[in-house]
Amino acid sequence: MTGHGKPAGDPGERHARAALSFLADPGDPVLGELLRHCPPADVVAAVAAAGSWREALPASSRQVPGLDRAFARWRSRVGEVPPGRRIAAWERAGYRLVGPGDPEWPTQLDDLGTARPVVLWLCGPADLRYSCLRSVSIVGSRAASAYGAHVAGEIAADLAGRGWTVVSGGAYGIDASAHRGALAPGGSTVAVLASGLGFGYPKGHYELFEAIAGSGALVSESPPDRAPTRPGFLIRNRVIAALSRGTVVVEAALRSGALNTARQASDLGRVVMAVPGPVTSDRSAGCHELIRQWGAACVTCAQDVTELLAPLGEDQGQGPDRGPVVPASELDPVTRAVLAAVPRRPGRGPAAIALMAGVGLDTAVRCLGLLAAAGHVERCEQGWRARRSPR
Amino acid sequence: MTGHGKPAGDPGERHARAALSFLADPGDPVLGELLRHCPPADVVAAVAAAGSWREALPASSRQVPGLDRAFARWRSRVGEVPPGRRIAAWERAGYRLVGPGDPEWPTQLDDLGTARPVVLWLCGPADLRYSCLRSVSIVGSRAASAYGAHVAGEIAADLAGRGWTVVSGGAYGIDASAHRGALAPGGSTVAVLASGLGFGYPKGHYELFEAIAGSGALVSESPPDRAPTRPGFLIRNRVIAALSRGTVVVEAALRSGALNTARQASDLGRVVMAVPGPVTSDRSAGCHELIRQWGAACVTCAQDVTELLAPLGEDQGQGPDRGPVVPASELDPVTRAVLAAVPRRPGRGPAAIALMAGVGLDTAVRCLGLLAAAGHVERCEQGWRARRSPR
Repeated sequence: MTGHGKPAGDPGERHARAALSFLADPGDPVLGELLRHCPPADVVAAVAAAGSWREALPASSRQVPGLDRAFARWRSRVGEVPPGRRIAAWERAGYRLVGPGDPEWPTQLDDLGTARPVVLWLCGPADLRYSCLRSVSIVGSRAASAYGAHVAGEIAADLAGRGWTVVSGGAYGIDASAHRGALAPGGSTVAVLASGLGFGYPKGHYELFEAIAGSGALVSESPPDRAPTRPGFLIRNRVIAALSRGTVVVEAALRSGALNTARQASDLGRVVMAVPGPVTSDRSAGCHELIRQWGAACVTCAQDVTELLAPLGEDQGQGPDRGPVVPASELDPVTRAVLAAVPRRPGRGPAAIALMAGVGLDTAVRCLGLLAAAGHVERCEQGWRARRSPR
Repeated sequence: MTGHGKPAGDPGERHARAALSFLADPGDPVLGELLRHCPPADVVAAVAAAGSWREALPASSRQVPGLDRAFARWRSRVGEVPPGRRIAAWERAGYRLVGPGDPEWPTQLDDLGTARPVVLWLCGPADLRYSCLRSVSIVGSRAASAYGAHVAGEIAADLAGRGWTVVSGGAYGIDASAHRGALAPGGSTVAVLASGLGFGYPKGHYELFEAIAGSGALVSESPPDRAPTRPGFLIRNRVIAALSRGTVVVEAALRSGALNTARQASDLGRVVMAVPGPVTSDRSAGCHELIRQWGAACVTCAQDVTELLAPLGEDQGQGPDRGPVVPASELDPVTRAVLAAVPRRPGRGPAAIALMAGVGLDTAVRCLGLLAAAGHVERCEQGWRARRSPR
């Protein structure tokens, strides 16, 4: 396991990606295309070369369309890039930078093509890659009804209890209910914010973000101090859609941003699901539209969701229990030691597991969270126990 | 137009079919098969022939399977068949007998094959065939919630206002809301009862049945004095499903009889629709099941329903307005005269229309109802006006 508070990968490339997250907006397609032809450090060097940026680029990358206007945009922000020691200070404070190729990078984001994030700023103990291997996005209206908030919380809690990670956008309404629902049973949840993580928009969710950062992961494409922009919310939605196997829309008016997330999920070939509601409620109209016109699956509970998301080959007849998504042989030695200390029945407390595995309690708890997200262990009355294999 | 209070077709055949409605249960498949080979009067004569029933049947019909047990069943009920004068008295009292081949017979019932009704007992001013050419069934739980009752009433009223006939089963709950919704704007509604029309089950709907008999049609396969039987409700459902172009389930628990009607509609190639509701309500669980597992269309309003039921070739871009389902040239002379007296704009009251057409007010009102059901005229503030043709 990597990336828990300590930097991963080549620091030069990591800091170059961090610099690019100051220079370019998330999802900038010209930058995405350019990074297919040359490493991030070359782009940063070219921006620094001002008027002679073209000569500073490797010859093979100079034919990317739109470079003139893009470099003008990026150069106008050169003053916003902080010195390397400021980035290093953020890393020491608990933010970690994860880019393509890093061990914690969720490779499903590569489906975004040139709109793939240049880098992700992360915070929280969950390993983003492992957590999102078995994840569902739950999104919906900020102005949720009591019905929508209740249903989002119930479905999220049930999914989290079955070892699924709940991904959402950290907004008021359905997003918040989904995160809180997942946290309630001690489950795993990931919030992808449109603001920087230090800015933490909306401000009213300070405590919720603290809770997520304490057990799951906060994610942003923007540097920690950035305020959100209006288009930034829609651009952020593609990351929510791409991280998870499917997106559930719980409540959405006909023009809700949640429908945008659903559309992105559909474009990415992810499963799109919608929870029905009263036809007399405007806040369910978008969900019904998804079902009627877009072919979204009508889901009413967590079981409906997992039935749709279980990959082909997993045993559908076994109910909610699925096999691990990461084989034990691919775990790092510390996590394997913790897994070996988890009994089949009746379960064991984390302190005893830590003792048997020969690791500290903090490490044991962190590893148990990852093992749960990956499907190896589950909570029980006595603490933790190994999940039964599907066969 | 035929069949309004006065007998139609051959009285011998009609009374033979009436007699069979006393002898056999609705949907008896042996009787259905037998009637493909010989006329109803031959079957009645054979039943009367007691032990020599086989010789009394035409030779070509003696190979129908199951005749022995069927004749034993039918013969055990010979005493229940009333004398012809009792049937004639029922006809004078306003009941009419309609069988296959009669002008008022809805030919879509022929899709039921050997389960086609032997005869229908009708009461009410609506012409069943014309009324059901553009009809929708709306069915659901007897134990409807306030939500379900409201939505059923709204959709029915809106459909009736657009010239669609609302078919249902006359039960408590969703059925009643659908009938009442259709009656509210002066629309056309048909109740298919599992009991005889004189018995009128459930008794608590006496006034509702009176209202339907006053402007639409009550329909039963059973003789007027028959109480309903438990299997009779399910058998009746096939008539509701077959009469209409599609069935809308508004609220249904997972084991509701309404799902049986939906299944029959599906088997008959009719459009199956379901109205979603709160996932927290058991009474919407059957609707969600229909959408999730059976591929029922998710509908939220009358417009959704008419979009699905408008036949290919009707102009979908014109909104709810559709062309007439019966061309003016096929109307009888009296109805044509009434149609000619209906202005395009701004509309005219029924008394003035009656005067111009040279018919009595009762006749004018009855014809206007039929013309509305067939899509030629519509109500307006001034009374009635011609519907604009779709082109």
